[in-house]
Amino acid sequence: MIKVGIIGATGYAGVELVRIITNHPQAELTAVCSVSFVGQPISEVYPSLNGICDLKCVTAEEVIEQSDVVFAGVQAGISQEFAKQCYEKGVKFIDLGADFRLEDEEDYKQWYGGEYIDKKLHEEAIYALPELFREQIKGKSIIGNPGCYPTSVALGLAPALRAGLVKTDDNIIIDSKSGVTGAGRKLTDTSHYPACNEAFSPYKIACHRHTPEIEQTLSKVANTKITVTFVPHLLPLNRGIISTMYVKAKDGVSLEQIRSEYEKAYKDEQFVRVLADGKTANLRDVKCSNYCDISLHFDSRTSTLIVVSTIDNMVKGAAGQAIQNMNIIFGLPENTGLNMVPTAF
Amino acid sequence: MIKVGIIGATGYAGVELVRIITNHPQAELTAVCSVSFVGQPISEVYPSLNGICDLKCVTAEEVIEQSDVVFAGVQAGISQEFAKQCYEKGVKFIDLGADFRLEDEEDYKQWYGGEYIDKKLHEEAIYALPELFREQIKGKSIIGNPGCYPTSVALGLAPALRAGLVKTDDNIIIDSKSGVTGAGRKLTDTSHYPACNEAFSPYKIACHRHTPEIEQTLSKVANTKITVTFVPHLLPLNRGIISTMYVKAKDGVSLEQIRSEYEKAYKDEQFVRVLADGKTANLRDVKCSNYCDISLHFDSRTSTLIVVSTIDNMVKGAAGQAIQNMNIIFGLPENTGLNMVPTAF
Amino acid sequence: MIKVGIIGATGYAGVELVRIITNHPQAELTAVCSVSFVGQPISEVYPSLNGICDLKCVTAEEVIEQSDVVFAGVQAGISQEFAKQCYEKGVKFIDLGADFRLEDEEDYKQWYGGEYIDKKLHEEAIYALPELFREQIKGKSIIGNPGCYPTSVALGLAPALRAGLVKTDDNIIIDSKSGVTGAGRKLTDTSHYPACNEAFSPYKIACHRHTPEIEQTLSKVANTKITVTFVPHLLPLNRGIISTMYVKAKDGVSLEQIRSEYEKAYKDEQFVRVLADGKTANLRDVKCSNYCDISLHFDSRTSTLIVVSTIDNMVKGAAGQAIQNMNIIFGLPENTGLNMVPTAF
Amino acid sequence: MIKVGIIGATGYAGVELVRIITNHPQAELTAVCSVSFVGQPISEVYPSLNGICDLKCVTAEEVIEQSDVVFAGVQAGISQEFAKQCYEKGVKFIDLGADFRLEDEEDYKQWYGGEYIDKKLHEEAIYALPELFREQIKGKSIIGNPGCYPTSVALGLAPALRAGLVKTDDNIIIDSKSGVTGAGRKLTDTSHYPACNEAFSPYKIACHRHTPEIEQTLSKVANTKITVTFVPHLLPLNRGIISTMYVKAKDGVSLEQIRSEYEKAYKDEQFVRVLADGKTANLRDVKCSNYCDISLHFDSRTSTLIVVSTIDNMVKGAAGQAIQNMNIIFGLPENTGLNMVPTAF
Repeated sequence: MIKVGIIGATGYAGVELVRIITNHPQAELTAVCSVSFVGQPISEVYPSLNGICDLKCVTAEEVIEQSDVVFAGVQAGISQEFAKQCYEKGVKFIDLGADFRLEDEEDYKQWYGGEYIDKKLHEEAIYALPELFREQIKGKSIIGNPGCYPTSVALGLAPALRAGLVKTDDNIIIDSKSGVTGAGRKLTDTSHYPACNEAFSPYKIACHRHTPEIEQTLSKVANTKITVTFVPHLLPLNRGIISTMYVKAKDGVSLEQIRSEYEKAYKDEQFVRVLADGKTANLRDVKCSNYCDISLHFDSRTSTLIVVSTIDNMVKGAAGQAIQNMNIIFGLPENTGLNMVPTAF
Repeated sequence: MIKVGIIGATGYAGVELVRIITNHPQAELTAVCSVSFVGQPISEVYPSLNGICDLKCVTAEEVIEQSDVVFAGVQAGISQEFAKQCYEKGVKFIDLGADFRLEDEEDYKQWYGGEYIDKKLHEEAIYALPELFREQIKGKSIIGNPGCYPTSVALGLAPALRAGLVKTDDNIIIDSKSGVTGAGRKLTDTSHYPACNEAFSPYKIACHRHTPEIEQTLSKVANTKITVTFVPHLLPLNRGIISTMYVKAKDGVSLEQIRSEYEKAYKDEQFVRVLADGKTANLRDVKCSNYCDISLHFDSRTSTLIVVSTIDNMVKGAAGQAIQNMNIIFGLPENTGLNMVPTAF
Repeated sequence: MIKVGIIGATGYAGVELVRIITNHPQAELTAVCSVSFVGQPISEVYPSLNGICDLKCVTAEEVIEQSDVVFAGVQAGISQEFAKQCYEKGVKFIDLGADFRLEDEEDYKQWYGGEYIDKKLHEEAIYALPELFREQIKGKSIIGNPGCYPTSVALGLAPALRAGLVKTDDNIIIDSKSGVTGAGRKLTDTSHYPACNEAFSPYKIACHRHTPEIEQTLSKVANTKITVTFVPHLLPLNRGIISTMYVKAKDGVSLEQIRSEYEKAYKDEQFVRVLADGKTANLRDVKCSNYCDISLHFDSRTSTLIVVSTIDNMVKGAAGQAIQNMNIIFGLPENTGLNMVPTAF
Repeated sequence: MIKVGIIGATGYAGVELVRIITNHPQAELTAVCSVSFVGQPISEVYPSLNGICDLKCVTAEEVIEQSDVVFAGVQAGISQEFAKQCYEKGVKFIDLGADFRLEDEEDYKQWYGGEYIDKKLHEEAIYALPELFREQIKGKSIIGNPGCYPTSVALGLAPALRAGLVKTDDNIIIDSKSGVTGAGRKLTDTSHYPACNEAFSPYKIACHRHTPEIEQTLSKVANTKITVTFVPHLLPLNRGIISTMYVKAKDGVSLEQIRSEYEKAYKDEQFVRVLADGKTANLRDVKCSNYCDISLHFDSRTSTLIVVSTIDNMVKGAAGQAIQNMNIIFGLPENTGLNMVPTAF
């Protein structure tokens, strides 16, 4: 059994990790850390876990001490320190935050305002979106788990860009919408119930931190520098992200050609479902699961490919993908413990 | 007092008309028609109206007989017949449906599948978005009240297009989101509570009937043919529409220039609020009111103007705007009976 | 015009007062106070008020200076101080908090933990539920505006208790449910969106502060000491309170007799609607209005009268009733400015 | 592997059965029937199942033919026919409807309006609430799976009644609240999104069909005839039931005594969690799981025991409990396939 520790266990991604690991046949949760709740059982914070996981929150050091792999769901800048400690002790480290997502330190400085404390760590690290970079993940000891928005975007656009069927100049529009858990457990005016129930608006318009991460992946698969316009919105629901994406098809390219590339790209991927012609992805249909649903549409009046991509932001967009990555680096079948069926409603 | 009748009074736009007219100081509701509920009081269908409006539903003929002005919220194709009857009796007619929105009958045939039964009616009719076409509305006897999506889009894009600050080739992306009342009172699988609560998806992607109406208005204000990519989504909330719109700015155009055009365009308009720099429109802030809030944003990395425009789909997007039009054709101050303050939550 | 000031204007009841007063034909808002936002326009806090009310928040002293009547929506204990200042200056004072609701200071000490700073103020004050105590309110200068739960309960049970048709021993069960605005604008774990969306539970079971207020009113109308079991719950919606109440009918009493008492009690009351036989009150049907809907049901198997009573917690349960009281003490028709039609959805 | 068939597979309980059986290690789904969708894959109706379960809907006969056990989620009256066919073929039958819940045929006639077509079937059948009647379930071939409300009520009140700590005269008040999936997949005015979002009301007050089922179980555990006042309400959320129950404690009985009985009763039950003193059950904390959370409270002012009991109406209230019963009759550990962790949000 893989001994698993979680730092930042009382955040939303943390409790979702607990939920999934509890039923993982080859992993067991050994220790959890939460700076706000040291000494308290995690089930005190999440009564849903009563009798299922009553581990008391300990320090990060204790977590690292007791684990083969440590997941960290903490704010940017802090993860690096834990990564370093893990690396030195030979413990695998999976970061659900942003410290190991950006290859270019300048991007990190610009968007997150910090520095890379030890370049060696970044050499050992990999940006780990399995469906796109599976081979490079194997054998790595530090994992940069992708952000929620970037996961939905990258899976949704990669096949078209890789196949060169769409234009790559400044015309990629990404209109994303996320449930409120994406904003985290921290109390804010914008996540206060009466402020976001029966409400809807975009936020961080064209300046969200996930932008460079999105562009890094798209540029890699397109093999050319990609710039996007990315606008996230806050949806009045708990779970899920949907990205509606607009790209210009190259002259003469048909929806059939595009669909064929998507089907080829994902035919062996359990967690990516390319919907049949005429169907539209809905975030309801992937809830509580590790699936990413993609539907393809074409506006022939303007030669615009419209891709709709949806994931559960807490599963494929966070904890589920992190465990998928754990399975990869520990040599397990990639879907181990991840066969949750979407809840339908 | 203006004698007001409503055909289709038990639809959502109908009951919203009742709500507003009840407090209109110069109009009184005299008769309501609903084919599904003939003989029943409207307060039986909407208990919210108990003791406030207990009028019994009568036939359309009776409504027309007793009214100075008739509002119709019925499906496309049927309105024309009522318009004809009203016109012949000298009764003003305000259509909340689509029969008098499209100037080009070919568009109507293509998107709605019907024909114009009497061209004379269309000569008497006007597409009535007051903030854009106020002068032409005065004196008209048949009003084509704009659709909900087109209202949010037209008010949001008109100043930029009219001033020629943005490009008009095939690069206008309109990503709209509507609350469920927009789908009407008719029971459908997609508006069943468990199917749309905690759910979100686009629908009628690049093929929604409001597309020609949007293009008609934008082409008129831009003075050139405009084609748009329009994708509506269904939001899990009752009221409100928000449109996030992406347009390329012409070279050298700044956000300040654009904002200045918007402020100039709407400085005398009570119902359009151009938000200050740094603010973002939220559909929560116009709920239950006749306001349209517009916020302007610029992605300098891709020279994209992003306009966010939000209305209450049932008020400015239907009943409120219809009454605004009634005020115009009866020579009343345009805001009479329409000073509802948004509910804040 | 009555000059109106609000202390605590950025709380939910405060902004609702602004909303209603804006359309009150005989009152004008002159000054607003909010300790958290001094110097900022209230429309900065509630963008819904943009262009409608952009008053800057000033100090409580300034508010009192400029007003004929002051509404206070602040925490228990503090209101008394403002009441005193108002009283000394001849300014009417309407307290939306708890400082002037309980006649017995011992109750106040026990449930709120404070003291009455000046007994004279309480002699000038009245617990002001117009439908029950209208005559005593006239001429008063300090108003204890009823709590939201107590309003729904008192209106729902008063006719049965006053007529002596139900038992008054320890068998009155009040199961109430409130929308989240009832918890106020302050950020808390329990009003964080992901914690209360798709969630539901009771809170402060049999120990909520509104209990003595409920019992005070019921005892008065029943003319005997009443003790109740009161359990509030938090509903995942913004506005509204519903109380489902269980009382044993006296032997031989029929639902018809009971209904007859309710109809008699409320036949001249605009804001209380006793629903017809077979109808059930729904909080949807009073939203954004000053109505209280009451439906009556009988479980003949257990001789239990079941009363369902519903109000908008922010209107009849707070701001609306406060303005109703203002109308009374200023000698205006009681419904002035309060004819808002419920929004239906 | 147990071969499982489902009749009524496209209902909400049906799709929930599919979700759970998919991950059941000792059962496999072999056939599904839905009269409305014969010939269509179930994943066409529930896109959440795409690629997970694409079985085409067949006739009931085919389902029975291919199964060791058949689950039926169909309307009252029809199940009996399928039960008969299964019984004659030696196929186990688990009814999620009401045909095998009531022991007294008179109750069935009165509340459901039908007759028992074959008394022998009822002799082979058992009302199967495992935590209360486990021993009698073993070896049975026809299972009457309990209703959702009755499950929450029976688990919540049984220990107090069995131990004789509470009064059993006509003073048991059950105020229950259910999410909208409880109303089923059928389109109705009351489950239309705009009608139940931001809405709340009781329904079938003191006349809901689950009343005799509740009384049957409570009478059995109390060993005396119990009559209750049962009032269900419709909650604006998808999943979950909560029952707030009011019972008079016998003189001198303390909360500690009562709690001790509950802890004793459920100490070996995995799926029932008696919450610690001071905690309150929330339906959020059992979502998507087979748990029942129970919290105990005491109003010493009126000697009222208040029990709050919550389940996921679709799992412990339907599909989960049905599979728990399948495990029992097939001799498997009772929690096989049922270790779903509640989703926390």
